Amino acid sequence: MEGVTMAVFTGSANPQLAMDITRYLQMPLGRAHVGRFSDGEVSVELMENVRGRDVFVVQPTSPPANDHLMELLVMVDACRRASAGRITAVVPYFSYGRTDKKDQPRVPITARLMANMVGQAGANRFLVLDLHAGQIQGFFDIPGDELTAGHILVDYFKSKAVTNAVVVAPDIGASRRARNFAEDLDLPLAIVEKRRNADGSGTSQLNLIGDVQGRNAIIFDDEIDTGGTIAQAAVFVRQRGARDVYACATHALLSPPAGVENMQAAGLKELVVTNTVYISPQKREALSPFLRILSVADLLAEVI
Amino acid sequence: MEGVTMAVFTGSANPQLAMDITRYLQMPLGRAHVGRFSDGEVSVELMENVRGRDVFVVQPTSPPANDHLMELLVMVDACRRASAGRITAVVPYFSYGRTDKKDQPRVPITARLMANMVGQAGANRFLVLDLHAGQIQGFFDIPGDELTAGHILVDYFKSKAVTNAVVVAPDIGASRRARNFAEDLDLPLAIVEKRRNADGSGTSQLNLIGDVQGRNAIIFDDEIDTGGTIAQAAVFVRQRGARDVYACATHALLSPPAGVENMQAAGLKELVVTNTVYISPQKREALSPFLRILSVADLLAEVI
Amino acid sequence: MEGVTMAVFTGSANPQLAMDITRYLQMPLGRAHVGRFSDGEVSVELMENVRGRDVFVVQPTSPPANDHLMELLVMVDACRRASAGRITAVVPYFSYGRTDKKDQPRVPITARLMANMVGQAGANRFLVLDLHAGQIQGFFDIPGDELTAGHILVDYFKSKAVTNAVVVAPDIGASRRARNFAEDLDLPLAIVEKRRNADGSGTSQLNLIGDVQGRNAIIFDDEIDTGGTIAQAAVFVRQRGARDVYACATHALLSPPAGVENMQAAGLKELVVTNTVYISPQKREALSPFLRILSVADLLAEVI
Amino acid sequence: MEGVTMAVFTGSANPQLAMDITRYLQMPLGRAHVGRFSDGEVSVELMENVRGRDVFVVQPTSPPANDHLMELLVMVDACRRASAGRITAVVPYFSYGRTDKKDQPRVPITARLMANMVGQAGANRFLVLDLHAGQIQGFFDIPGDELTAGHILVDYFKSKAVTNAVVVAPDIGASRRARNFAEDLDLPLAIVEKRRNADGSGTSQLNLIGDVQGRNAIIFDDEIDTGGTIAQAAVFVRQRGARDVYACATHALLSPPAGVENMQAAGLKELVVTNTVYISPQKREALSPFLRILSVADLLAEVI
Amino acid sequence: MEGVTMAVFTGSANPQLAMDITRYLQMPLGRAHVGRFSDGEVSVELMENVRGRDVFVVQPTSPPANDHLMELLVMVDACRRASAGRITAVVPYFSYGRTDKKDQPRVPITARLMANMVGQAGANRFLVLDLHAGQIQGFFDIPGDELTAGHILVDYFKSKAVTNAVVVAPDIGASRRARNFAEDLDLPLAIVEKRRNADGSGTSQLNLIGDVQGRNAIIFDDEIDTGGTIAQAAVFVRQRGARDVYACATHALLSPPAGVENMQAAGLKELVVTNTVYISPQKREALSPFLRILSVADLLAEVI
Amino acid sequence: MEGVTMAVFTGSANPQLAMDITRYLQMPLGRAHVGRFSDGEVSVELMENVRGRDVFVVQPTSPPANDHLMELLVMVDACRRASAGRITAVVPYFSYGRTDKKDQPRVPITARLMANMVGQAGANRFLVLDLHAGQIQGFFDIPGDELTAGHILVDYFKSKAVTNAVVVAPDIGASRRARNFAEDLDLPLAIVEKRRNADGSGTSQLNLIGDVQGRNAIIFDDEIDTGGTIAQAAVFVRQRGARDVYACATHALLSPPAGVENMQAAGLKELVVTNTVYISPQKREALSPFLRILSVADLLAEVI
Repeated sequence: MEGVTMAVFTGSANPQLAMDITRYLQMPLGRAHVGRFSDGEVSVELMENVRGRDVFVVQPTSPPANDHLMELLVMVDACRRASAGRITAVVPYFSYGRTDKKDQPRVPITARLMANMVGQAGANRFLVLDLHAGQIQGFFDIPGDELTAGHILVDYFKSKAVTNAVVVAPDIGASRRARNFAEDLDLPLAIVEKRRNADGSGTSQLNLIGDVQGRNAIIFDDEIDTGGTIAQAAVFVRQRGARDVYACATHALLSPPAGVENMQAAGLKELVVTNTVYISPQKREALSPFLRILSVADLLAEVI
Repeated sequence: MEGVTMAVFTGSANPQLAMDITRYLQMPLGRAHVGRFSDGEVSVELMENVRGRDVFVVQPTSPPANDHLMELLVMVDACRRASAGRITAVVPYFSYGRTDKKDQPRVPITARLMANMVGQAGANRFLVLDLHAGQIQGFFDIPGDELTAGHILVDYFKSKAVTNAVVVAPDIGASRRARNFAEDLDLPLAIVEKRRNADGSGTSQLNLIGDVQGRNAIIFDDEIDTGGTIAQAAVFVRQRGARDVYACATHALLSPPAGVENMQAAGLKELVVTNTVYISPQKREALSPFLRILSVADLLAEVI
Repeated sequence: MEGVTMAVFTGSANPQLAMDITRYLQMPLGRAHVGRFSDGEVSVELMENVRGRDVFVVQPTSPPANDHLMELLVMVDACRRASAGRITAVVPYFSYGRTDKKDQPRVPITARLMANMVGQAGANRFLVLDLHAGQIQGFFDIPGDELTAGHILVDYFKSKAVTNAVVVAPDIGASRRARNFAEDLDLPLAIVEKRRNADGSGTSQLNLIGDVQGRNAIIFDDEIDTGGTIAQAAVFVRQRGARDVYACATHALLSPPAGVENMQAAGLKELVVTNTVYISPQKREALSPFLRILSVADLLAEVI
Repeated sequence: MEGVTMAVFTGSANPQLAMDITRYLQMPLGRAHVGRFSDGEVSVELMENVRGRDVFVVQPTSPPANDHLMELLVMVDACRRASAGRITAVVPYFSYGRTDKKDQPRVPITARLMANMVGQAGANRFLVLDLHAGQIQGFFDIPGDELTAGHILVDYFKSKAVTNAVVVAPDIGASRRARNFAEDLDLPLAIVEKRRNADGSGTSQLNLIGDVQGRNAIIFDDEIDTGGTIAQAAVFVRQRGARDVYACATHALLSPPAGVENMQAAGLKELVVTNTVYISPQKREALSPFLRILSVADLLAEVI
Repeated sequence: MEGVTMAVFTGSANPQLAMDITRYLQMPLGRAHVGRFSDGEVSVELMENVRGRDVFVVQPTSPPANDHLMELLVMVDACRRASAGRITAVVPYFSYGRTDKKDQPRVPITARLMANMVGQAGANRFLVLDLHAGQIQGFFDIPGDELTAGHILVDYFKSKAVTNAVVVAPDIGASRRARNFAEDLDLPLAIVEKRRNADGSGTSQLNLIGDVQGRNAIIFDDEIDTGGTIAQAAVFVRQRGARDVYACATHALLSPPAGVENMQAAGLKELVVTNTVYISPQKREALSPFLRILSVADLLAEVI
Repeated sequence: MEGVTMAVFTGSANPQLAMDITRYLQMPLGRAHVGRFSDGEVSVELMENVRGRDVFVVQPTSPPANDHLMELLVMVDACRRASAGRITAVVPYFSYGRTDKKDQPRVPITARLMANMVGQAGANRFLVLDLHAGQIQGFFDIPGDELTAGHILVDYFKSKAVTNAVVVAPDIGASRRARNFAEDLDLPLAIVEKRRNADGSGTSQLNLIGDVQGRNAIIFDDEIDTGGTIAQAAVFVRQRGARDVYACATHALLSPPAGVENMQAAGLKELVVTNTVYISPQKREALSPFLRILSVADLLAEVI
């Protein structure tokens, strides 16, 4: 598709990222009013013609997740009803990833519900980045691609050249991704595992599978929510003899109440994340001594 | 269906209403955890078996509309995946009613999108109350019924026996419903109409179609959002010679910033609404001298 | 889309309108056999290639509504199965508009059923004109637009410059559209309202909300079916002191038995309608002294 | 399902058949208003509760096919929106059977479109009788059954004991069904075949495959539309030496202009049909000397 | 569509046919890995970009039918998820044709199921050749075309100029197609009919409808499965006085155990088939004295 | 549902399992013909009435996966078209689990395609056991449950009381499930990880994360396909000092060519699997010294 027929719109979740993407593409951001009615309902009006155009709506469903999701859906509906040629939902952070299966008898599979909605609203394609589980791709009826910011993080740590390092998965669920990261950096892998105490007390303790003694640890996860898991892992690997501890992840939610505090208390040498989710100046400030934010805008722009 | 196979669950939007319904039905409210994860995502787990049961999920999509909508959808998904026999979405207040048509070239029809979602999530029927436009019934793929609280309001005013009264539609959009209300009370109708000034100044003024001079006015609308329209109409009809001014509506959102303030300033003799939307103690308190809340619980319970 | 890839076909409901549209577009009308088998079944064969083309099927679903609807659907199916690139159902008059909600417990919502069928048959877009209720747009799964002939009627009356006029809604259901018409002409609005007599006799009487005394009245409605409502309103406003009475509407069904007779008896100064529905020479003849037909062909052609 | 929960409704196409069915089932016919608005639009209101009931809508789509189809669809929609438990469309004659494949490049497959609509409107099952091609069963998304009146016709001719007979297919398309009929009666089969003349004149002539000389011929087809094919075959087999000629078919449309006249001119000893399609008293009268109508009501009632 | 944007892929069912098609189109065959995992699951990876391209997947569902069907579906899914512009499933032989209706109360309609799957997997169009019944076209939700190899067979026999010939339908089910073939060749038609013996013994016998005495017979069918029907018919018509016996059909499955043996025993002068289904060198060898294979590659290439 | 209305049918993939289930339920297995036509197409006929019944079709999609899948789909279609009340697809082993995401740009997501087909064919619920990834639940549109045979395996090893043991995940992908198994047995976890050699040679080597020295190892995986991974892990952990090595998995495909040979060569003390997949007598014989098969029939029967 030629540039002239493309249009990139943004919701309110991360307009800076959308602007970075359009700057890379050397095109203006699509004009649209995306706001709220007095009762909090989402209000959308596209201010330029999209008939037959190849439209991209950039909107991570970061917190507040429901509002950002509804904005995305309503924008897609507006594009569809305005006879856009093709609509791609660009969702750099796709929420509800943890609700991706029934591990209890009577729970929802909200990630599937969300993927359905995106297609139902009228999107023809999706573009996501580092899903909580790759299988969520298959939740979508519509075609699409999952990109990964893994290479950006790998390149960063390659350029840093941390010596004598070990990659650490902060829990068993992160072990697969951490392994791929470790393989790309040609580093060994260790895994932190949380176990219920067998005494029935309801308490739990951490185990270390593999070895961190005397090494610099790079904790790797896909997402930092409240940061509790990573902070615990950071403290634990230092107890087990690790030296400098780095942490990295694609999605930096840093959710309250403790998102920022946990990171501050973790004693990290460096915290490396990307800009899939908007990080407020307050958060940046609070973590500034060791926070490093890498941009995924070029990666997304290339694919768009 | 026998009582034993029914189940009524509630989201967090108006649990009191759901409890009033189950009390009328002489059955317990269904047990479920409906909460939030740390990042604000909706978390649902049904705590009792629903396999093959006739399930009702009571949840108005009142503000915050997106959160209450997502809760409804996620609850329905959980019921569906737990093999409920039939699922009825009971939505006493159905939001996004104003976005029910494309009156601009590139706007969404969000009410249709919402109706689709309710069916898509797995609801088999819907039950709503006083939609902003009756046609929204047809937005649903699934069967369902629109009830009206009109009779409750009519009965109230019949019992009050306001003498020498006139029903007032506060704008042209409300004229059809106001007419039906007036007919049921055997009262004349007047309509307040807002007009752009033809001088191109962008200002507007109110006209009165019909007559209120020396009469007691009952302003009738389906919903009070910020209350601006009703408050303006109240002041205006008094300027035109109305005596006591009552206002009534089914849905009392009383949205900030001015919902409560507008009602206080309108100089109403009485404000009569229902409990489709939860009204906080603060709001009740602020409007207590003239607020009257009628219950729709019995009406809903009868149909359920 | 370039002209070369477009094709405009017509069913049998209003071929003249389709020809006016193609004349405006300076292209030939698409060749197709649209006829009947001996038992009355619709028979369609497209006589030119439509593969990959941007096809428009022009067919109001005017009476006989079911036959014209089936023709539209069968033509769309033929286009779809012949691999047309995009199919737009152009339905200048969309019937079954009055059956747009369940106002009784066990009635259909036929307008939704029709909208479903149009999409189901394979149309990708719809184009309609002055729906009975704007919400019917939302009945379609497919994108589309509702145009209005309102501006054509407004322009006509502006050029006529009727002095000392008032716009009259012939019943409460027409009040919203009549208001917009009145606002565009900067005229006051009056509403004729029909009321059941409160004595339980089953009879009803007309009320006037607003004032027509000594003014020239312009009755405005979206559609003239049997014309009873408009004729009653015309007589009634003259009783209330109106002088010249005009009537205007987009869709002129003039259904038997009394469509023509009612208009003749209404004592109209002028009856202004459009050509969305085919008006037979007999009808034109019978109403010729005061009938004025404005064309929507250019409006439709512009959008196509 | 117990009798108490069943309901049988009829459209206007063949109410007598529906009444015969309910008489056999010893239950009353469901009460419903099925009529027309002034402009010919179908108007339906169910006059009894169908919530949760097992509903059957009896309506052949005989001429006027489009009106009878729309009535069927609108009735099904009304049942669905009134929350009927299960809806079965009983369509003793399913029209548009001849449009069951694309034998030209740009024609519709209307039979599929119709089958889609029946399911789309909300029917859960279908019940049809002697489709034009058995494969049309597969056009339905919903489950259902095709019954055959063949046994009724076979039993009739068995009881008649026509001696020295031959079954005749009036054209090649009827040969398969005619063979089954012949096998059931243990009679030989002959086929009348129409051929374009190879001289390019556009005329055609009839051939006989098989032998009828000195035998009594029973022409068998699924449907009599204008009757031209059967009348031609009757005359032709007599020319080839057949003695008495009978004709039989399930569906008796006897379409004008020549339906009745063709049958009168065919010189038939007897014409045996069923009551799937309503046959007017005029037609019965005109064909009374040799017309025999067998009832399918018991067959349908058994399955219902 | 221009050549540059087209791509033709093949599954493993008949790669030679796909190569013949691409040779005719003067383009390379699309590169793809189509193989099996160790447990027999189909494994597909497209080795070239298909984004936005007009893709054709050539794959008859010849035996092993289930494997070839799954390969087709998986390839279509891969194309769809790789954002192909339009996907056409080219299925020169479409299996499960005999399961096209419920002729018993509790059997599947597998042909419909297959057609659904092809659309569901993501194909936008289908292209098939000589379906078992033309109505199967209507089983597809997606548009498409049925081509016929009839003209290729007709041309072949025209060029052969068999004198004094008669076309023979080997059973009643083949009579319609055989008639068309006979008409194109301007030859008479005879039909072989199998009858259950009326003595209830469960045995059956063949009848001849029409005449073959002293004539050269050309047996015509759509498909040769085990060849039993054609072999029986060949022997039978020779018993009834036919001289040379030819057989022809579009699809040559020649299924074991007896496919080849039956043809060898039938005493055919010539057996004329096409290459819609891959015929192994062993089969070609075994039938070489009288087997003639005509190619449909050019026919398919023209349409593609 | 009462026993009288239930029916359990089986395809040809594992009839013994279905019989074990019905024996537990004290009901007969549903009668059905499930076979093949001469060309290998699946042929199904239900031999008992299923109208309104609660039907379960038991069929793992074990190799040959495509045939067993098609059998399942065709059986479900037959049940649906025979108006079964509710249809549950019981798929103890759900194949194509490894194709659950796009890890390359142009590959299918076959597991989603399969899940779609099961719903599309007409199943109302699914019942599966130990999916390759739990997220595959979300691939189904229909509700259903994933059971686990984990407790059966845990109970077995608890009763065996292997002392001084360690659970081993044979690759990183199995680590999560292995951890849960280890936690239930209160044993430590070690992980075998395969790494590409960083020298670019394309070879790879195994690493051990965690410790097995002097311990008895229990290798845990969800499925044994060719068994290569487990056999390699068994040899490797013994090299690293493990003593007795056990292996266990839910699904025992033991695919040729090496499935049985790999297990024989792995030097296992015991191989513990379940009967979700049919294991031939030859395989049982070959592995008899150390093979232990546990039954999931009671588990499935309980849920049914």
